[in-house]
Amino acid sequence: MAPHIEKYDVIVIGAGPVGLLTSVCLSRWGYKVKHIDNRPVPTATGRADGIQPRTLELLHNLKLKRPIMAYDPARVFEVAFWDPAPGGKIIRTGTYPSCPSFLDARYPYTALLHQGLIERVMIDDLAKTGTHIERPATITRFKTNNADSNYPVEVDLKNLDSNVTTTYRAKYLFSGEGARSFVREQLQIQIRHKDPISYVWGVMDGVLRTNFPDIKMKCTIHSDHGSIMVIPRENNMVRLYIQIASSTDPDFDPRKTATVQEVQQAAQKIFQPYSCEWDRVEWYSVYPIGQGLADKYTLDNRVFMGGDVCHTHSPKAGQGMNTAFHDAVNFAWKIHHVESGFADRSILETYESERRAVADTLLEFDNKYAALFSKTQSAAGDEKAAAQANKDFVELFKANCEFTSGFGVAYAANIFNYTESSLPSLSQDLRNLILSHDKHEHKLRPGRVMPNSNVIRVVDANKAHLENEIPFNGSFRLFVYGGSTSSPKRGQHKLLSALSDNLLKSGSFYQRFMHKNHAKLDTHHDSDNPHSPFFSVALTLCARRPEIEIEDLPELFQAYRDHVYVDDSENAPNAKVANAKYGSHAKVGLVKNDSGDQAEGAVVVVRPDGHLGIAVKLTDGPETVEVLDAYFGQFLKQGEWNGENGSSWGSLLRQADTRLGGGAAYVKSLL
Amino acid sequence: MAPHIEKYDVIVIGAGPVGLLTSVCLSRWGYKVKHIDNRPVPTATGRADGIQPRTLELLHNLKLKRPIMAYDPARVFEVAFWDPAPGGKIIRTGTYPSCPSFLDARYPYTALLHQGLIERVMIDDLAKTGTHIERPATITRFKTNNADSNYPVEVDLKNLDSNVTTTYRAKYLFSGEGARSFVREQLQIQIRHKDPISYVWGVMDGVLRTNFPDIKMKCTIHSDHGSIMVIPRENNMVRLYIQIASSTDPDFDPRKTATVQEVQQAAQKIFQPYSCEWDRVEWYSVYPIGQGLADKYTLDNRVFMGGDVCHTHSPKAGQGMNTAFHDAVNFAWKIHHVESGFADRSILETYESERRAVADTLLEFDNKYAALFSKTQSAAGDEKAAAQANKDFVELFKANCEFTSGFGVAYAANIFNYTESSLPSLSQDLRNLILSHDKHEHKLRPGRVMPNSNVIRVVDANKAHLENEIPFNGSFRLFVYGGSTSSPKRGQHKLLSALSDNLLKSGSFYQRFMHKNHAKLDTHHDSDNPHSPFFSVALTLCARRPEIEIEDLPELFQAYRDHVYVDDSENAPNAKVANAKYGSHAKVGLVKNDSGDQAEGAVVVVRPDGHLGIAVKLTDGPETVEVLDAYFGQFLKQGEWNGENGSSWGSLLRQADTRLGGGAAYVKSLL
Repeated sequence: MAPHIEKYDVIVIGAGPVGLLTSVCLSRWGYKVKHIDNRPVPTATGRADGIQPRTLELLHNLKLKRPIMAYDPARVFEVAFWDPAPGGKIIRTGTYPSCPSFLDARYPYTALLHQGLIERVMIDDLAKTGTHIERPATITRFKTNNADSNYPVEVDLKNLDSNVTTTYRAKYLFSGEGARSFVREQLQIQIRHKDPISYVWGVMDGVLRTNFPDIKMKCTIHSDHGSIMVIPRENNMVRLYIQIASSTDPDFDPRKTATVQEVQQAAQKIFQPYSCEWDRVEWYSVYPIGQGLADKYTLDNRVFMGGDVCHTHSPKAGQGMNTAFHDAVNFAWKIHHVESGFADRSILETYESERRAVADTLLEFDNKYAALFSKTQSAAGDEKAAAQANKDFVELFKANCEFTSGFGVAYAANIFNYTESSLPSLSQDLRNLILSHDKHEHKLRPGRVMPNSNVIRVVDANKAHLENEIPFNGSFRLFVYGGSTSSPKRGQHKLLSALSDNLLKSGSFYQRFMHKNHAKLDTHHDSDNPHSPFFSVALTLCARRPEIEIEDLPELFQAYRDHVYVDDSENAPNAKVANAKYGSHAKVGLVKNDSGDQAEGAVVVVRPDGHLGIAVKLTDGPETVEVLDAYFGQFLKQGEWNGENGSSWGSLLRQADTRLGGGAAYVKSLL
Repeated sequence: MAPHIEKYDVIVIGAGPVGLLTSVCLSRWGYKVKHIDNRPVPTATGRADGIQPRTLELLHNLKLKRPIMAYDPARVFEVAFWDPAPGGKIIRTGTYPSCPSFLDARYPYTALLHQGLIERVMIDDLAKTGTHIERPATITRFKTNNADSNYPVEVDLKNLDSNVTTTYRAKYLFSGEGARSFVREQLQIQIRHKDPISYVWGVMDGVLRTNFPDIKMKCTIHSDHGSIMVIPRENNMVRLYIQIASSTDPDFDPRKTATVQEVQQAAQKIFQPYSCEWDRVEWYSVYPIGQGLADKYTLDNRVFMGGDVCHTHSPKAGQGMNTAFHDAVNFAWKIHHVESGFADRSILETYESERRAVADTLLEFDNKYAALFSKTQSAAGDEKAAAQANKDFVELFKANCEFTSGFGVAYAANIFNYTESSLPSLSQDLRNLILSHDKHEHKLRPGRVMPNSNVIRVVDANKAHLENEIPFNGSFRLFVYGGSTSSPKRGQHKLLSALSDNLLKSGSFYQRFMHKNHAKLDTHHDSDNPHSPFFSVALTLCARRPEIEIEDLPELFQAYRDHVYVDDSENAPNAKVANAKYGSHAKVGLVKNDSGDQAEGAVVVVRPDGHLGIAVKLTDGPETVEVLDAYFGQFLKQGEWNGENGSSWGSLLRQADTRLGGGAAYVKSLL
């Protein structure tokens, strides 16, 4: 008899940011995850620490932001540029917002916290869903074969304490091993380097006593004695990045290093005329960096990679962990949609195409950034050249704020992200209903994140951030905007009734994936997924809250009672469209006139990761749903979904929340 | 040899809200606290649950709000009023904000969470400072005597598991035992009842399935079948309050009760025409209530009481726990100031005078509220009388929003709270500099909380809530407003230089309590208390952030580098004074002209609990500090403070924060 082999949905290698967030998502959605890491304990100190504005939004949507912010990270709102001054001194030449207001971020700052604490929040979350990280353990072999066609990946994991190697089978293997990846090596996937130039960097975290006035700001300091980047940290700490060597140096040695003392002495010189005395050093490291990008993120759509396995670059732009998080969620929801019978297996192709393009853009930026940083350094002594290099550096920084804050990520047109050449068989009449365009300024741009806006929830009169109201639950989000012509009174919602009727009509993309046996489900309190684990609906109406009665709304929306909102600028203002009567409609471009009191109705389809798919005008006939049928038809499974055996992901989530949230049992269990 | 007797600064009886918060404050400030509770485990469910807007501000200032909000309490923004309709049904007659915008609250909602979770946050905090709650244990005897004049209170505590009774000595005994208090009984302090009328209330927490549209709002429902108050709770729960009997009933029986089923049946009738089906009941209780107030809060300024020991009332206005928290902080900071040699012992008198007056006002309100609630009930059937009673009830509710939200608490004039008859020996010229008046609308009213405002911190460009920038550290807060005539440039701060020079001058109230040996202290990173544990200074300047260099400021303010802010309405707007150029100045009434670009300089003295003491105009001479010397002279100890042996409270706090906040050791210790 063959030995019993334990089977998992996904085996995750590596418990850094990308591996942990992949595990968190899939574990919450009920998948069986085997997760290992080769370190005996989580990251104790140092490493990645910058969480960018768009990542904060994502973490908030994942309900992970609050526990992270509870550790009181430093917050960077502005960046100060310091340049050489006469007498070997430095002088501040300017400051610039880290996330300028034109980006309209909900959280316009970078949060700085050491990676270990961020990991800890995710490890705590995994504990709630029962996923345990085995450590220290390593992967020693894997192959995809047909020994068990449901679990095609065979993986050997070796526990490094016991030295016992065990064979497992899984549907997927995900490598988040970091830059030195066994999986990538075995697959013989090449890392391409953007540029032959490479750098050696020193990084030091510690507590510094200084009268340097901007020690609590992010600073780039160029001086006659070298260059430093300053990043404030939690608990009065500061991080210094110092370039130790560049392959453009005449005497370049990639193994060049520097001691803590050497770096501190260099810092003291650069900081002149300011004092510089170290209370303690918490972490110090020297490492070579090049801009590398993996050729492929998967070969067979069974063994995947993400994070530093696929892309390495300099740490200065604070992008590493952020890119890793977005890799993780992009991977997780697609696996979820394939494995739960919602979407066609072909959607997995888009993981690599979407995420590799982002990494490519990042490397392009990082390459220019590192080169200019280096240039300002080598220009020291030549006043004019240095001034020009500094100016170029600041300009590059400003021009790239959108990208570095995370809002510049734009997934290219594909089955999820509509463009004019999508859906070729659609009639021109139907195509005219599509409102989303690649060129909209901060509005309905497919592949970009949905603009944020403030609304008021009807059932409890709470002020709400509309873009965050549907949690990261693996569902496509249908944000329905009622427009200004839908009266709030019963029977006078022509557009909304048409939408409701046509979504609930037999054969619609929405109806095909509805649970067939409602009685089995706790839909009363599962307000995110009352009908289906794949869709969540939020309705925003142009009205005052007291005008709305949920029971007067068309049938579909009654099931989403907790997701009905009013767009009422007087009581829930939206700063960027202060004059619009309907600010939430205005922020997605549905208001055409200046006073903002005439708004169009629309359905805005947002992917599970918050990126916009398509937006379609509401009509009083079947047309809106016809367009949506065509859109979802690009990747949905055909026929009826067998939801009888599916669990409600919303319920799963809620169970986890209850474990976290309260109740007598919780308090008793802890005390 | 006499047996060794363990000594404590304070012995606290009872680990409900008032006892826990007392312990949290005193433990953080380095006092040795013995804390017992007679229950074997903390509150598992039910009990108090409403945290009012002002209390949220206080908890935020104590760094306790974030962990409480992490439990995801329900938030009440509006109250709905439901009245009888024809056919035995109910109909919504109106809604009203729970905390209307004219109150200008930072958090304009009530947070609802069961008491056990709120207690847990404080128990966790105590663990960080090393205070442990012994349970189950009870107090069996206490007396004040001179056997040890430093520790005049002798207390016997009996462990209810071991039955061992131990004698302790303490400087103070604090009873937070709840309504049935051994300490109060032993002291023979009477409870006076506001009104002979008493009530029997039923309260039920549970998960309800209903199509009642306002189940997530706070509601008062009056129907022909009785009255109910609905309070939403965390985790889809709801709390119902039902009046079971009133002593005005013809057949009143104070021991009248009702079963869960009876209350549920009553609720079902009242909720008609809406459905009402219980998933589960989490907690149920029936209890008699009268409005009682203790004659005294202490007899000898050694044995004190607070919370329900001193005041009992109906739970409907959601005031119990809130009043308890404010009792606790009022008591704690005064004990701290006496025991650390800062203030005269006589200040302890103000604990009773301030807190008992608040309780008296609360009982007055509660009395009217309960009577009207009862009246609407008894008027059922008489349509006209019922309509009038309902109208009166709604009017009372609206009129009392300021009080119930916590912003109506106004401590009367005393040594801390300036009024025109204070400081009789002050010359008229100096008196003319005083800006605070009892009658200011939401501005500089002594005894009230300081208005909130938005500013930008200079050192890190963070947006900040000025009123919360100095934590609850036991210090008096000197909020210095620079006014519009102080140039940000070096040497051009005439008003600020005068203030700095005179505060640092030998013999000033500020200088007398400065640490004499700075070298011993970590003042570099202790930005809240660089000079003294009794004062924290925050400076707000009319300027743009890039215009300010800390090193250009007068000496005093350089020590408070992390507490220098700019008042810049363009970058940190203040909604209530949208047109003022200097919004933070405008919010405290320092801007006189319409365009808000001419602002006066002032020092606003705020007590450690956030209530305003006095506000004095800045002058370019010694006058401002002369007024402050007179103000502080009312309660400060004379002569020089021996700070050499004192620890820096700020450092203590920071140590606790570090234990909480991060660093390698923390992560390692937990994993």
